[in-house]
Order: sequence, then C-alpha cells, then structure tokens
Amino acid sequence: MNQIKAFQNIVGAENVLINNDNKIVLSTTFATNKKILGIIYPLSRKEIQRCIKLSNSLKVKIYPISTGKNIGFGGKVPTKDHCIIMDLSRMNKITDYNETLSYITVEPGVTQEQVVDFLSKNDSKLILSVTGSFKDSSIIGNCLERGNTSGPLVERAEHICNLGIVLPCGEYIKTGYGRFKNSQAKHINKYGLGPDLSGLFIQSNLGVVTELTLWLSPKLKESEILMFNTINKKQLIDTLNTVRSLKSSDVINEVFLWNDYKVSSIIQRYPFHLFEQTPLPEEWLNNFKDQYCLGAWNGSVILRSNSKLINWCRKKTSKKMLRKFVNAFIGNKDIKFILIKLLKYPIEKLLNIKLNLMLEMVKSPFFSGKSSNLSIKSLYWRKKQLSDNSSVDNPNPESDQVGFIWCDVVIPLIGEDIAKVSEKVTNIIINHSFEPTLGILCTNKRYAILVNGITYDRMVDGEDKKAMECHDSVLSYLEKSGYYPSRLGIQSMDKISKDCKSYNRVLRKLKLCLDPYDILSPGRYDFRNHWKK
Amino acid sequence: MNQIKAFQNIVGAENVLINNDNKIVLSTTFATNKKILGIIYPLSRKEIQRCIKLSNSLKVKIYPISTGKNIGFGGKVPTKDHCIIMDLSRMNKITDYNETLSYITVEPGVTQEQVVDFLSKNDSKLILSVTGSFKDSSIIGNCLERGNTSGPLVERAEHICNLGIVLPCGEYIKTGYGRFKNSQAKHINKYGLGPDLSGLFIQSNLGVVTELTLWLSPKLKESEILMFNTINKKQLIDTLNTVRSLKSSDVINEVFLWNDYKVSSIIQRYPFHLFEQTPLPEEWLNNFKDQYCLGAWNGSVILRSNSKLINWCRKKTSKKMLRKFVNAFIGNKDIKFILIKLLKYPIEKLLNIKLNLMLEMVKSPFFSGKSSNLSIKSLYWRKKQLSDNSSVDNPNPESDQVGFIWCDVVIPLIGEDIAKVSEKVTNIIINHSFEPTLGILCTNKRYAILVNGITYDRMVDGEDKKAMECHDSVLSYLEKSGYYPSRLGIQSMDKISKDCKSYNRVLRKLKLCLDPYDILSPGRYDFRNHWKK
Repeated sequence: MNQIKAFQNIVGAENVLINNDNKIVLSTTFATNKKILGIIYPLSRKEIQRCIKLSNSLKVKIYPISTGKNIGFGGKVPTKDHCIIMDLSRMNKITDYNETLSYITVEPGVTQEQVVDFLSKNDSKLILSVTGSFKDSSIIGNCLERGNTSGPLVERAEHICNLGIVLPCGEYIKTGYGRFKNSQAKHINKYGLGPDLSGLFIQSNLGVVTELTLWLSPKLKESEILMFNTINKKQLIDTLNTVRSLKSSDVINEVFLWNDYKVSSIIQRYPFHLFEQTPLPEEWLNNFKDQYCLGAWNGSVILRSNSKLINWCRKKTSKKMLRKFVNAFIGNKDIKFILIKLLKYPIEKLLNIKLNLMLEMVKSPFFSGKSSNLSIKSLYWRKKQLSDNSSVDNPNPESDQVGFIWCDVVIPLIGEDIAKVSEKVTNIIINHSFEPTLGILCTNKRYAILVNGITYDRMVDGEDKKAMECHDSVLSYLEKSGYYPSRLGIQSMDKISKDCKSYNRVLRKLKLCLDPYDILSPGRYDFRNHWKK
Repeated sequence: MNQIKAFQNIVGAENVLINNDNKIVLSTTFATNKKILGIIYPLSRKEIQRCIKLSNSLKVKIYPISTGKNIGFGGKVPTKDHCIIMDLSRMNKITDYNETLSYITVEPGVTQEQVVDFLSKNDSKLILSVTGSFKDSSIIGNCLERGNTSGPLVERAEHICNLGIVLPCGEYIKTGYGRFKNSQAKHINKYGLGPDLSGLFIQSNLGVVTELTLWLSPKLKESEILMFNTINKKQLIDTLNTVRSLKSSDVINEVFLWNDYKVSSIIQRYPFHLFEQTPLPEEWLNNFKDQYCLGAWNGSVILRSNSKLINWCRKKTSKKMLRKFVNAFIGNKDIKFILIKLLKYPIEKLLNIKLNLMLEMVKSPFFSGKSSNLSIKSLYWRKKQLSDNSSVDNPNPESDQVGFIWCDVVIPLIGEDIAKVSEKVTNIIINHSFEPTLGILCTNKRYAILVNGITYDRMVDGEDKKAMECHDSVLSYLEKSGYYPSRLGIQSMDKISKDCKSYNRVLRKLKLCLDPYDILSPGRYDFRNHWKK
C-alpha cells in the first residue's frame, strides 16, 4: 500500500486511487477476480516516464490502459494480480492534424467521438474509420489491440505511424522517422530507417504508447451502400467467393455480414415475455426473420468514390456478379429504395413486415464515419430488465452486469472456409444454450474476421461459468482446426501459443531484455505460461 | 583461415570459397576496401542454422546476402571487414503458391524473372510488381531492404508475411500466424497474435530470412498508361499536388516521373563523341529534349481496372485535372496514340523528332509486370566504351567498372516540397560535375520517394572520390533539411542517426539480446557507431 503512495509525488495525490482493503473491485463483462493495488492517472509523457522509473525501483507492476473500453476482452481488468492500473484517459489531446496529408496525432485518452467532433468542427473533408465499440473508446487502445473498423481503413494497425513509446526502463522513443530531428516524413511513413520497432508495441507488454499518428481517409461524395441477404450455406459460400473476386479487382470497398441472431439482438432484446427458457427457439427466430425481411446472413457492400458514373459501373458489376447468389439486393440510391422509404408505412401494413433495419443501415455509423453506441446495444440482448441509468446513448454494460465474451478469428476469404467455421461455431454456441451472434468482416481481399460474441446476463446464477465454458469450447475448436484469433482478452491470454517453443523463447528474451524487472503488464500477450515448455 | 574450413562439414567443401591471401576481392559500383574470410553457399534452412551455431562458437562474423544485386548500395560487399559472406543464391525454390488468395512463397535465391516465368508457366492471372533492378535480383533481398516496385504493390515490405527467420542464436522462427500448427491464415495475414516481430528483421542484422510469402495482384485487363511532361517548376508543383488528390480518391494507381537527365541516360550514353568534358552541357540536353519531345520531368500515370467504362471515367477525371498543368498528355488507348504508332516514320521525318520513348513506355516492365534490365542500362551512361561481354540483356556493372551510388529519400507528396528538394539535389550534383538522374516515385497518397543515382565511370581517375563526395553532400543537405533516406547502403550506414540517442540505445540492447556474440552482419543498419554517444 505504501508503494502506491510514492506515485502521489509524481501525479498528485488527487490522481492516485489507493485500493485500501481491496475496496476497489474492477469488474468487466465476465467473471474475474483480479486484485489491484490502485489506479494512477498521469497527465503527460514525462509523468509516465517518472512513474515507470519509480515502479522499477519499487519492483511494482504497472498495467496501462487507455480508456479501458476493451469490451468483451476484459476492459480495465489486468491479466495478473497486484498491479497498479495506469489509466491514461486524462491524456486526451489531439496534438497534430493535417488536412492535406490526411492524418491526426492523438494521445491515449482521445476517443472516437472526440476525433469525429474535431473533424466536424474543422470542416474537414476527411473521415475517421470508426469501430462498433463505444463512442468514448480510445483510438490508441483499439490500434494497440489491432482492432478493425467498419470504415474504409479497416485494419487500424495498418494505418498508424510515429508511435511515441515509454519503454519499461523509462526511456522515450519514437518509431519510424519520428526519431529524427526535424523529420518531414514522420507522420506519413511507418517504417523509418533500419529495423521497424513499432510491431513490438502492439498486442504487447513492452512499452507504454503515449502518442501516435493515425491516417484518415477522404469523404467521397458519391458513396453508396448495397444491402442483401443469403438464406442457405451454398448462397453464403458463393457470395463470399464473389466478394473476394470483387475486392481483388477493386470494384467494392467495405463488406460485412451479420447473421440473423446478431441482427435480432440489435433490433430488440431476448423475447423473455414469450418464453422463459434459453436458448432462443428456432421458430421465433424464423418468424422474426420473415417479419424483418432477414436472411440467415445479412450483408452490406459499400462503394466509395467521388464519381457518380464510376459508382454506377461498380454497382452494375457488383449486382451482376452477386445477384445470382443473394436475395433482396438493393442499393440506397436505387429508385426502389427511395420508394420504399417514402411508402414505408403502407408497405409495412400491407405486407405485415418491418423495414426499419434496411432504412437504418443507411444511417449506420460505419457508412457515415460517425461513432455510435448502436452495436453496444446488442450486448443487452439477454438482459431482462435495464437499470434506470442505462440507455443506448450512454450504455454501461459493466455496471449493468451485462455478460459478454468476445472472440475474433482470422479466416481466409474463401466461402467454404468461412461457411464451415461459422456453422461449427454456431453449433457449439447453441449447444451451450447461448445465441450465436456472428459477424463476418471482409477485412481485405485475402481474409475475413469472424466476429463472435457470447452475450448473457451475469445476474443469472451459473451463467458466468457456462458462458466461459462456451467461449473455451469455441476457442479450442478454432485452434484445433488451424483458425487462430486476431486478438486475445484476459480470458484467453494463456489459452493459445502453447506449442510455439522457439517463438515463445524469443518473446521471453525480448521481454527480459526490455523489461528486466518485469514491471509492465505481466502476462499480457507475452505467453509467459508457455515460456518454460 | 582455418575457421572457414570448419563450414565445409556443413555445406560441403565445394560450397566454401576460402579467401586465401585475400585473392577474392569483392567489388561493387563504388570504391570499397573490405576484406572477407570467404564465401559459403548453404542450400537449406537447416544448413544455415548449423552455420550460425558454428559461427557463434568460433566467434566469426557471418554476412548473409540473397543474390547480392543491391546495386548502388554495395552489392555483395559487407559493412565491416573479416566477415564470411553467406550467399543464399542456391536457395532458389518457390515453396508455395496460391492463385485464389494471390500469394507466392519464396526462398532468398528466387529472382524477379523466376517468379515472372513461374506465373507465366502456370497461366496465372496474377502479376508480380517488379523493380527496375536486374531480372536476376532477389525478391527477398529487395523486400528486406524495403525496396519499392513500380507495379501496383509499390511498397514491397507492405505486402509480405510469414517470414521464416534463423536467429543469431541458431533458433528458427516464423512470424505472424506462421508460428502456429496447421495455421490457415499464415500466408494472408501479417501480424499473427501478440507482438509482431517481422519489422525487426527488415533493414536489420538481427536474423537471416530464409523464406517469406509475397502477395501478388490480379492482372486487370483494361489497364492504361497516361504519359505527360512538365516544363517548369510551377507545373511540377501543380502536377504533384493534383496527383496527391487523384491518388487520395482512388482515381489513379501508380505514378512516376523521370527528369530529363534520367530519360537521356536510358535512351543513350553520354555524348563523349561530341565533347570530352563533363558534366553535360545544358545546350545539348535542351536539343535532346526537343528531339525526343521531353520535358524537364516526364511522367506516367497508370490506371488499372477490369472495366473499360470505369477506366474511361478515371482517365477523363485525370485528364481534366492534370491537363491544366502538363504538356503532351496522351494515353496509350487514345486514337491519337494509335495514329502516332502507325505513322511513326513520317511523323518523325516531317517534324524531325523521335517518338521511341513514348512508344517504349507502353511496353515498359513496370506497366506489364515483366522484369527487365532496361533501367540498369542507364547506369552505363558515363561509360565511354562497353566491354565485349556486356549487353543490355546481361549487364554486369560491377565487372564493367560502372560507377553508381544510390540515394533514395522519402518526401511528403506535396508539390512544393518535392520541387524544392529535387531542385537542390540537382544543383548539388551538377556542382560536383555529375548529371542528376532523378526519379519521383509517388509511393502512396502521402509520400513520394525521390530516387537519385550518381552515375560515373570508375575507370576515370579520381571519379570514385568525387562521386562519393557528391553523394555525401546530397545526404548531408537532405538530413539537414529533415528529409531522410528510405534505405542505406554500405556507403551511408554510419552517416545517419547520430543524434538519436535513446533509439540507438534500444537498438544496441536488442542487438546484444538477440546476437550476444555479434556474429551477424555487424554494422548493418544497427547504427553502432552512434551507440555510445
């Protein structure tokens, strides 16, 4: 306890929370039992350096978080006991911005919403590629987890450079050309000269990233969204193979698909008013799908361009190639779509269907580059009642005892592979009595990420355990089949990489080299449980 | 000497060249005086591991090269004395290839031409992005130097994954998902899980890369090349700023520009028959430009698409935006171009001009994805006589005593910056009595590489020294102005990164951690001369 007091001299007493008698319990969206020494809130890179140096001399562990919104992966909760959480949310300055070269430089506390607002205030012609996470989630936090956006720059870690890093010894370095005096290229080139160290600090515990430059993309005025659905496995396979070919020849930009369960969980909560039992009866789902005009998978393809005619050509090619395999194919600039929008009410009455989803997609954050808590809403799927403080505008799944465990997996963009894996994952999750809310994010022309979150209610006895067993079964199937996650949470850090002996030896060497007193985020992406095998 | 004999047991006596009495003199395209112990030629990753382990116990230095064609940067010559060159050219297998996911896996000895031939034999619909270097230059060698191609995938190091690496301790690891058993994503995703180590082994001396996967791109059938030139600085600035904007909105693909000197050096050798003195008289250059319809800068824009109509739109937009600033704007599918091709002879006679260059560009390797020694030809610019063995098909600048020193620099894609730097570099080179053969490769939407090679004749007394002084002046100007090189040669390894104290300390730490006996390529991209400052 005295150890943490020493940090008061650096960051000020008001910015140190001491965990007297373990009264601070960090909770997340699944069961954890990690004890912390307290929380410190530094305000500057220099304060971080001093804290890190102090923790070396005290031999105390520091666990940095940006804003702690890593939902489904553990949030603010550390991988090991007895850490001091270093919360960087006070470091929330946008330190550089360039419209011509389309980049923005941010500190760890800068949120998605903050950048969206900043660009809007500056009348910028650029957009941020946003994620489905909270509006107030950290951009750096997401980059460092190698998160994916649903915007034009899908892979966040591909579009960053100039990382400012406090090393575990307290030294400060910049990656790429950032290390050079008066460097003109530091914001626009990742690599710099000589070995590129930046990869060492992503999904890692080898440094505290205090700043980085993120690339933005132009707002292209003639963008369009095409929507469709697929009903059976064959359709899904053919659609994904066609998407690969369309992406390869640069006809289409972003593509993502949500399964029926995922869409249902966005539209409403579990129909507990109709039946007490879980998982969801198939019959209800089928009725729901009919009512909302949904397929087993519901996809969106985005075309971005400044030219009406180019987009028209690309849409024509996309439609020609995809129409054979998909249903309800419609673009938001089609006359049919405009008519549906106008005649929504009579159509809905007449056909006894609901068209909200289709009309909502067009306004979706991914399409427009605005951050939104819409996706977070779906985490409440299994909650019978919402607490008074909770709202879609300001959701707080952790305090609302929402249960949610995340698992993302990288799969080659081959229809047969993705269909096989998603079918198997669906079965595992249903067998564990949960609903498989899956998404397929076609990251680039070579691979997709199968996004898979297990949603439950932490207030239901036994569900914490059941949900984690379900997650572990999914992970174990994936690993056995050669499909590995794209990121890990505190629930999965030790569950992968057991057999990689040489590689784990190198990771250990690097950890001991850069962090000899092991003060930084022990157990976070260092696979230390497998070091000695 | 006995030390190197010990390697015979591993690779076979016939694959060890012992440098008795320093009879093996490695020469390159500028003056060097490095002494080597000999050359070993391993055939497999296992042999490399055994060699590396042996060199640790003997405390002897190993300097790996792929095929040693790093022209202008030192070729096969090591950075320090007393190394054993490890030549990997015998490891020339293509070990994997996938048409659907568009990748190829190669060993260090695999050359550009080999991949081009391989794809052609397999009736592949994919193309390799080639460089202007030798047909028989190594692909891995170029990737590891972070080289740039002139094809659709410009930045080679952006499009590789699954690196197989023998570490300085002899361990073998794979980067990305390559480390996992039965991994389905190893060829298609760079990062894998946890820290990404791959950046450590590029422009570095921390490991021997024995294999990697390179991504390819689809052959798009409606591709087109637009050619133009600019006459004055204002035109160049406006053109480059327009290129940035066109690249940002994905209207155009590759863009590169060559200055008048560079084009001249490709078309012919220095006109020594007209005047003995160097540098080139301006008057001759001006006449030459008139004759060949050249500008101060001569550019090409490539549009790649499968759709005639899309390319037509993109060409229209490009022309509309660029035409204000450029001259002689023509596309290879324009009717005007087809007429010129047909009526070449009468047009040339009538107007007393030569149209070869324009017609040649269309067949250029960069456009078609074929490797070619065309660019290498220009290195012979200052040679009065060619040796009997030398030909464009099989050039050997090192044995032909061609002088050539390379310097690439990263500049923001802002017309004013690039014009300023290229003007200053031009002046420095002319003041040193050489011809500034410059190219601007618009790498992406944020930066360009100014390519700058000093060409001379090593047989002329004093030129080696003069040329290196010129190179050093250019480098010194660039560094002072904040424009840093994208890669270094053995001539420049110690000339950059002096002031980066923290960064150099980390590099030293990592080197000592991974290579405690300092056996691998000492001085190569480790900035060791600045470790102690």
